[in-house]
Amino acid sequence: MINDIPGVSRTAYYEQIARQRMAPLWESLHSLVPKAPQPKAQPAIWKYAQVRDLVMQAGTVISAEEAVRRVLVLENPGLPGKSSMTPNLYAGLQLILPGEIAPSHRHTQSALRFIVEGKGAWTAVNGERTTMHPGDFIITPLWTWHDHGNPSVEEGGEPVVWLDGLDIPLVAQMDAGFAENYPEAIQPVSRPEGDSFARFGHNMVPVRHRVSDPTSPVFSYPYARSREALDALYRNGEFDEWDGVKLRYVNPATGGWPMPTIATFMQYLPAGFKGRRYRSTDATVYCVVEGKGTVNIGNDEFTFEPHDVFVAPSWTPVQLEASAESVLFSYSDRPVLAALNLLREERS
Amino acid sequence: MINDIPGVSRTAYYEQIARQRMAPLWESLHSLVPKAPQPKAQPAIWKYAQVRDLVMQAGTVISAEEAVRRVLVLENPGLPGKSSMTPNLYAGLQLILPGEIAPSHRHTQSALRFIVEGKGAWTAVNGERTTMHPGDFIITPLWTWHDHGNPSVEEGGEPVVWLDGLDIPLVAQMDAGFAENYPEAIQPVSRPEGDSFARFGHNMVPVRHRVSDPTSPVFSYPYARSREALDALYRNGEFDEWDGVKLRYVNPATGGWPMPTIATFMQYLPAGFKGRRYRSTDATVYCVVEGKGTVNIGNDEFTFEPHDVFVAPSWTPVQLEASAESVLFSYSDRPVLAALNLLREERS
Amino acid sequence: MINDIPGVSRTAYYEQIARQRMAPLWESLHSLVPKAPQPKAQPAIWKYAQVRDLVMQAGTVISAEEAVRRVLVLENPGLPGKSSMTPNLYAGLQLILPGEIAPSHRHTQSALRFIVEGKGAWTAVNGERTTMHPGDFIITPLWTWHDHGNPSVEEGGEPVVWLDGLDIPLVAQMDAGFAENYPEAIQPVSRPEGDSFARFGHNMVPVRHRVSDPTSPVFSYPYARSREALDALYRNGEFDEWDGVKLRYVNPATGGWPMPTIATFMQYLPAGFKGRRYRSTDATVYCVVEGKGTVNIGNDEFTFEPHDVFVAPSWTPVQLEASAESVLFSYSDRPVLAALNLLREERS
Amino acid sequence: MINDIPGVSRTAYYEQIARQRMAPLWESLHSLVPKAPQPKAQPAIWKYAQVRDLVMQAGTVISAEEAVRRVLVLENPGLPGKSSMTPNLYAGLQLILPGEIAPSHRHTQSALRFIVEGKGAWTAVNGERTTMHPGDFIITPLWTWHDHGNPSVEEGGEPVVWLDGLDIPLVAQMDAGFAENYPEAIQPVSRPEGDSFARFGHNMVPVRHRVSDPTSPVFSYPYARSREALDALYRNGEFDEWDGVKLRYVNPATGGWPMPTIATFMQYLPAGFKGRRYRSTDATVYCVVEGKGTVNIGNDEFTFEPHDVFVAPSWTPVQLEASAESVLFSYSDRPVLAALNLLREERS
Repeated sequence: MINDIPGVSRTAYYEQIARQRMAPLWESLHSLVPKAPQPKAQPAIWKYAQVRDLVMQAGTVISAEEAVRRVLVLENPGLPGKSSMTPNLYAGLQLILPGEIAPSHRHTQSALRFIVEGKGAWTAVNGERTTMHPGDFIITPLWTWHDHGNPSVEEGGEPVVWLDGLDIPLVAQMDAGFAENYPEAIQPVSRPEGDSFARFGHNMVPVRHRVSDPTSPVFSYPYARSREALDALYRNGEFDEWDGVKLRYVNPATGGWPMPTIATFMQYLPAGFKGRRYRSTDATVYCVVEGKGTVNIGNDEFTFEPHDVFVAPSWTPVQLEASAESVLFSYSDRPVLAALNLLREERS
Repeated sequence: MINDIPGVSRTAYYEQIARQRMAPLWESLHSLVPKAPQPKAQPAIWKYAQVRDLVMQAGTVISAEEAVRRVLVLENPGLPGKSSMTPNLYAGLQLILPGEIAPSHRHTQSALRFIVEGKGAWTAVNGERTTMHPGDFIITPLWTWHDHGNPSVEEGGEPVVWLDGLDIPLVAQMDAGFAENYPEAIQPVSRPEGDSFARFGHNMVPVRHRVSDPTSPVFSYPYARSREALDALYRNGEFDEWDGVKLRYVNPATGGWPMPTIATFMQYLPAGFKGRRYRSTDATVYCVVEGKGTVNIGNDEFTFEPHDVFVAPSWTPVQLEASAESVLFSYSDRPVLAALNLLREERS
Repeated sequence: MINDIPGVSRTAYYEQIARQRMAPLWESLHSLVPKAPQPKAQPAIWKYAQVRDLVMQAGTVISAEEAVRRVLVLENPGLPGKSSMTPNLYAGLQLILPGEIAPSHRHTQSALRFIVEGKGAWTAVNGERTTMHPGDFIITPLWTWHDHGNPSVEEGGEPVVWLDGLDIPLVAQMDAGFAENYPEAIQPVSRPEGDSFARFGHNMVPVRHRVSDPTSPVFSYPYARSREALDALYRNGEFDEWDGVKLRYVNPATGGWPMPTIATFMQYLPAGFKGRRYRSTDATVYCVVEGKGTVNIGNDEFTFEPHDVFVAPSWTPVQLEASAESVLFSYSDRPVLAALNLLREERS
Repeated sequence: MINDIPGVSRTAYYEQIARQRMAPLWESLHSLVPKAPQPKAQPAIWKYAQVRDLVMQAGTVISAEEAVRRVLVLENPGLPGKSSMTPNLYAGLQLILPGEIAPSHRHTQSALRFIVEGKGAWTAVNGERTTMHPGDFIITPLWTWHDHGNPSVEEGGEPVVWLDGLDIPLVAQMDAGFAENYPEAIQPVSRPEGDSFARFGHNMVPVRHRVSDPTSPVFSYPYARSREALDALYRNGEFDEWDGVKLRYVNPATGGWPMPTIATFMQYLPAGFKGRRYRSTDATVYCVVEGKGTVNIGNDEFTFEPHDVFVAPSWTPVQLEASAESVLFSYSDRPVLAALNLLREERS
């Protein structure tokens, strides 16, 4: 062995190969190929009661138009400076005030909007607007023109806050980010509200529709219907010891996820629910819609109330308890893990 | 050539090979490999006004229980004795009277029920019942236990008639028919009405659902919702010169057809609609829900009114006209043609 | 019940509804919806030793050009007059003599050629010719131009016989047959022999190839390679009590069947093989390549030798025995049954 | 605006929200959502002539057994300290000396081996060994046991060097890395060499094979066959102005990529080839098999010779020229980009 030969050390060899931009795998193999995931992201919670005032103050700090998107990014404490909630996902709280416009653009990042509070604001996607209500789940698929707006106070507008979920860190990792601004502040409205839902939302599709991309042609999933489905299933006796009653949103034209990189879920926990431990390799961001309870994520325990946002990193056990009837929305990078054959789950 | 050789004729040769169960392709090539489809099935219509009394009389001819299924088969005049509407599809009008049961069985034939008149009867599939209303489209997928029933007069039952659409001739052609009777007249009800719709009907599916077969987990598609979708699209300006406004029913867990052998459609024709000529290699059975008008199929012209049933054979041009706002349900063997790469369409 | 009312009989009712082209389902339900498949096709064998002379005589009865295809159709004795081997499949023995051409055409029927004896003739598909050798499996996918030819005696041509397998009865059942003649007797050769194999045959495909139809881009599967694969597997210890060593041909661009309606297989039976009973809902046509043995199909027993053709109808048990090392080619309508969710198998 | 209010600055606000682990999106929006990809990875080349001696010296620095894998990682100069060639892919040169063993383990990283020089060493995957020859492409799919070995000098062993390509950085980004060591240094050999190729390599698959995962059941793609395919196509006139003649390796059981995260290609450039500019969002690592030429990647120009390794980052234009007949192997993260709907290409 060279390190036994006088005058020739591994260190010297490492310097020599470094000049050729090479490194010895054997010094880093264990960290590069770990026995199990070692996420840098940490469990964390954002209590809406603590951050709501700051979100509302953002409305005085900058205008929606100047900001383009007036969002407070929720940054995972384990991923500082990365504007990331998990390695692949971003989360932020967006505020739009009455009379404001968030100008139209498009990008290869996929985005979801989960409405936290306020109603009456709208998102436009591909020429169709949808009006927001708390609990609605709305998508702006990759490379679709989208803008947001809010009627003036006179027209009944009120401040609206939603949770933005995007795959910004994933697209950055992929070196695949493209973006364009629309030539006008808002795109023209070419189809009446509800048109895409009428086409695709009723377990029917237009006879000549051909699936050409994986994103859902339905872009608004109203809370009223999701809640109705959960209620009906709970009444019918559906119940899982880990999940309570949990549904995933689908693209009705394919049965797949609404967008190719982000899975979304809504689940119901009855009062008194004490869930069992679950972990998986997708990292999940939760937003509380109704109720209250406690969540254990790894070694952390958080109490939750409506509008709180919390995050469970990859392979970190999650255990949910509900002291009152609760509804949780969540999103994760599950489609990515599944597409790459890297999804593992463990229920214990 | 042998036929020029004295004493040896083609006829003699043909007799000789026939003894070996062989035949000369060259004598039949043109009919075996035609230039274009030569359907034996004919265009035809069943006017409900003419057949309704006979359907109702069937209730005095035989009991539902004795009949197992009290159905008048609609037999294409071009396919006599074959109990077929088209080469692959069967159609029949089924009557169930108050207080009756059509006993539970299952078979490898796929079946649809399109409710023509009466309400309150039910179909049970896999432990769940669904109540029938005119215009509802209900499936009983292959190899699922299913039975039908009707409350007694005292409970509000009324005679109910529906159109049965099955792939009986196709399954016969495939030599793939299996059937079993359930040990009891009716299967036990294990899930409340609406359960499958709650699970799958709202653009969400249970988080742990795995697609294991191609049939739709939603087995009732209510008319109220289908009609609402058509109305909304027509108001929104959707309009096709051949189809008016036409939607196909989908399996929301896959985006595919509700059953692997039968496509189903519902379309809206505004008053005054004069459609253009269309043909395709799938053969289609129509059932009028509302309105009135005229249909040209090949060289035949039929007027249509509610509940009439008419059929367009493969590759036979169809042209629809509506003198009043009309809604048509239809079903065809399109999934079969598509799966075999044999679907052709022509719009002229 | 009407049949208890004096003067009104079921018979009279049946006549009345017959005038409306309706029939009582309850009189035919059991035959329409059988407990298990009741194939009309029968087990049968064509001993090549008995038919070979007749096949060769066909060469004196008619020219290839006049016949278009000089084929003796093998007709299942249970399906008389239908030019069918099974409900969905056709089989025939085609002869092409030195110097002959079978002119170019295309049709929506899918065809396979399995070379029985003779070599040097060619099939052209989409501008590329492939030379035939005994045991080669060649496809002419639906709607592809194809013609066959044989060099003159001077060029080394010899009589060549192959087994044609087509889905003629299936396409007829579907009312989906289209056909066209090429303007010339033979299509121009635009690609050298072996081109499609070079593109797709080596577990590689052209980088910009997009799969646009389900048929295999490889259209010749040489016997030498199939035999080599079977030999290697048998040497390696692969062995199944029902099948011996059995491979299915695949479309290397999809992993699916070479054509959307016909499955093809080749299997090796070691000397002394006594297989177990197997049945399935696809009907299978076998062609013996090498060896000899016995096959039991339902209640029939046949001995087989090279070039014999035998058929196993749907759901009829098959049991193979080999007194000498044997190789069998076979084809069936399995892709059709599978696509329609109607495939069942039973190994006993 | 708050920044106009005396005593309240944006800076103060930013500090306040930072305490809640929140950040203003509007300060980072442009970098988070760029107009086009801004890869940190740089074009780079490793000249085999310069690094070969160092690779061989590694054999004296550490034993294969101590190293587990004796590899010099090729580290992209734009991604220092990350053991990465591109954001998703890793590349390294592995040396195994006669008589050595690289012990058996498995991990959720997918790996390819492209043989650079030497022959006779073997890789074992799932109980089957394959012998290496220069130009062979071998895969060790995720979570398959694999070990490498080299016969002793007495048995004809010689030093063997191959290029390792793995998705280590991608799996790290996904927080989805799992690994295990096999209890013994080498796994038992349970199937003879060539068994998987016999089963799946000849455009046939075992009749009862069911595809249960996306990785290829063929794990060795010999150079002799790849080269033969390229040669034949070039002789046949196949030629693309950007690519020369370029094939991608496929999983013959699905037509998809051999592994779900890494695409692999082999291309032939005739002498004198001057390719046009191409870019795409997958990042590609090339390894020269034969020939010589020049490659322009972005603003860099490199000459290449056999065994050189070079890299083209995402969206960086690549232009190939060959002064002698050349063959290039390459691998990229294309399946990942495609699965996420993020693949873009531009040919100019």
